[in-house]
Amino acid sequence: MDAEIIAVGSELLTPFRQDTNSLYLTGKLNSLGIEVRFKTIVGDDRERLAASLRQAIERSGLVILTGGLGPTEDDVNREVVGDVLDRPLLEVPELRKSLEERWAKLGRAMPANNLRQTLVPRGAEWLPNSRGTAPGLWIEQDERILVLLPGPPWELEAMFEAECIPRLARRAGGTRIRTRTYKVVGLPESEVDRRIAPAFKQYTNPETTILSVLGTIEVHLRAHGSNDAEADALLTELGDKFELALGDHIFSSRGESLEEVVGMYLVMKQKTVATAESCTGGLVAERLTRVPGSSSFFVGGVVAYSNDLKTRLVGVPAELIASEGAVSQPVAQALAEGVRRRTGASVGIGITGIAGPSGGTPEKPVGLVFIALADDRSTEVRRFQFPGDRERIRTWSSVAALEMIRRRVRE
Amino acid sequence: MDAEIIAVGSELLTPFRQDTNSLYLTGKLNSLGIEVRFKTIVGDDRERLAASLRQAIERSGLVILTGGLGPTEDDVNREVVGDVLDRPLLEVPELRKSLEERWAKLGRAMPANNLRQTLVPRGAEWLPNSRGTAPGLWIEQDERILVLLPGPPWELEAMFEAECIPRLARRAGGTRIRTRTYKVVGLPESEVDRRIAPAFKQYTNPETTILSVLGTIEVHLRAHGSNDAEADALLTELGDKFELALGDHIFSSRGESLEEVVGMYLVMKQKTVATAESCTGGLVAERLTRVPGSSSFFVGGVVAYSNDLKTRLVGVPAELIASEGAVSQPVAQALAEGVRRRTGASVGIGITGIAGPSGGTPEKPVGLVFIALADDRSTEVRRFQFPGDRERIRTWSSVAALEMIRRRVRE
Repeated sequence: MDAEIIAVGSELLTPFRQDTNSLYLTGKLNSLGIEVRFKTIVGDDRERLAASLRQAIERSGLVILTGGLGPTEDDVNREVVGDVLDRPLLEVPELRKSLEERWAKLGRAMPANNLRQTLVPRGAEWLPNSRGTAPGLWIEQDERILVLLPGPPWELEAMFEAECIPRLARRAGGTRIRTRTYKVVGLPESEVDRRIAPAFKQYTNPETTILSVLGTIEVHLRAHGSNDAEADALLTELGDKFELALGDHIFSSRGESLEEVVGMYLVMKQKTVATAESCTGGLVAERLTRVPGSSSFFVGGVVAYSNDLKTRLVGVPAELIASEGAVSQPVAQALAEGVRRRTGASVGIGITGIAGPSGGTPEKPVGLVFIALADDRSTEVRRFQFPGDRERIRTWSSVAALEMIRRRVRE
Repeated sequence: MDAEIIAVGSELLTPFRQDTNSLYLTGKLNSLGIEVRFKTIVGDDRERLAASLRQAIERSGLVILTGGLGPTEDDVNREVVGDVLDRPLLEVPELRKSLEERWAKLGRAMPANNLRQTLVPRGAEWLPNSRGTAPGLWIEQDERILVLLPGPPWELEAMFEAECIPRLARRAGGTRIRTRTYKVVGLPESEVDRRIAPAFKQYTNPETTILSVLGTIEVHLRAHGSNDAEADALLTELGDKFELALGDHIFSSRGESLEEVVGMYLVMKQKTVATAESCTGGLVAERLTRVPGSSSFFVGGVVAYSNDLKTRLVGVPAELIASEGAVSQPVAQALAEGVRRRTGASVGIGITGIAGPSGGTPEKPVGLVFIALADDRSTEVRRFQFPGDRERIRTWSSVAALEMIRRRVRE
């Protein structure tokens, strides 16, 4: 059974609001083996909603409408569904009673328009709302299932969990969907594709999706199986080919972030790290400390933004900055070695570069970044020329620094 | 002219990814007076995309497809558009040349599959991609406009700005839509709503939307007018009521971030700031240095994660940490005053707290954070008990610290 989701609400067609319910619903539906094939966002408009609904019923076995069940005039889902399925709306005494009791409890008279929430298309099942006033609707017609859910996530999720999942589980033919994500660093998207396409092109199941995410590449696999074990076996069969093709460019296959993986290696090898950052302004330290328990591997760092602080806090010789320039290979090295010495960490990281938009020169353009790693064996300095704006240059720099730690500590 | 947006990509039908390009596009289209009537999300599937495209061309004057222009096999937009419009794909020598040059610059051989990016449906205009390899497409047929844009926001936004807005501006007719956003700090969403609802309930134009965003509240206004001046007048009429109701809790009405506003005040008052962070791990420094030109007001900072570094790098007395505990009012104060002294900044910020998930005690639970601000006049220390997980506690802490700087420096 394929599903599609129609999110209804004019505010979802402004630049400010995003439909997020569909992410929750997709996750739940997938776990039942149901694929979401389309998502549509349409305003509170009878004609447009009716058109979208007719088409959805045409092509999908399960259609979920979210939002548009409120008491106000612009909540038209009930009426439109009644029209499209040609089912008159009938008042449900039970709903009217509970609604009136609810308002009585609040010690207030019920606004007349709330009665709209007691109307149900003939033959439809209404779904109790444990967290709000708007009941949901469950309608079956011509082998199709149509579900109407309230828009507020807090209400929608409780209703879907309690009312829809059990009903769907009974129907959902055995198949299950399982997912796995490989996270890759140090290769461009086209190169990742070149390496793994020969493998994934031989499979329609699992499906493979390649995404570029903040300086890393994610390879998403989704496998269908008659049970979880079968789906997992398929993930492993294709996944093993990816691991062969991408080798140690894969830093995670269980959803861990790059900083979490770096943290795990540091703890495993009982090493600690300290950072001396200029152009990244503390981003590497901030990423490392996102990891719960980071105090066991991250001792601290310095954001040496001004030249004076590079000398005062990290001991970079002022003459060196004067002769080589703050953005230079020797200064990166001095930052890494200096912060390691002053903090007693086993690994020191030094970063200096030009994040822009200003400050670039022909010899040292925006995007030029030197990253140094110092440990008890040696100091490695790498030179990067990153494309893009300030934010991208800082992000790429933090990824490159974390990757240098990962490779050094793993050895 | 009404528009609709079709976001293409199987990853957008998983629980992992959200289409965000449509928010940017909607904002730009609105400013040209163009309303977005539908958003559709469809996978990398020829049949389904073709069906969505046919219907969109039927009902909308402007159809924008995002994504699906990459070099990989699963990027099918070019082919599908060619089929649906019955226009064969032709190779554009100019595109091939620039693509080959691009790879030559990288000193690498171009993967064969990249050649797919040089194909253009007959009679289509191709749109240069200043930030990537995939060109966009502009196609006019039967009074309809069809635009294909690359998926990566960084590429899409530059291309839309440079190539599409000028073309659309020539066409767009009468009504204009203007927006304004008030950013609010220091009040919960319910309190913001309580204060401004009486005002915005009297208006259907402008429309008002209240959103809670990373520790701040955003109030979005959207006004229709026969011209910009008329729409702006409506924004100002209602906006003035909001400014009265929210006072100096509003930190921005022109889209500036909190760190940008703090930076502007610091530059205006010719002051500088330095940070000594523990539980936020450099987040405040990282946020301040997101601002272009931050070197003029941010001298640097210390991420004093271990107690030892609080003493070594910031000069917090070891006895103080031993007697009061690292997470305490006096240690926050010593961090702020110490980093100010050691860096020579006019304002010093000290942050110490328990971000969790572990490390909490009955006396000092997870979410307890002390933030100190020291300047030439005095040192202020505030105690916070933030709800939520590690990420939320760190975000709220950074907002609170930035807000303390804003209020002190404004005085």
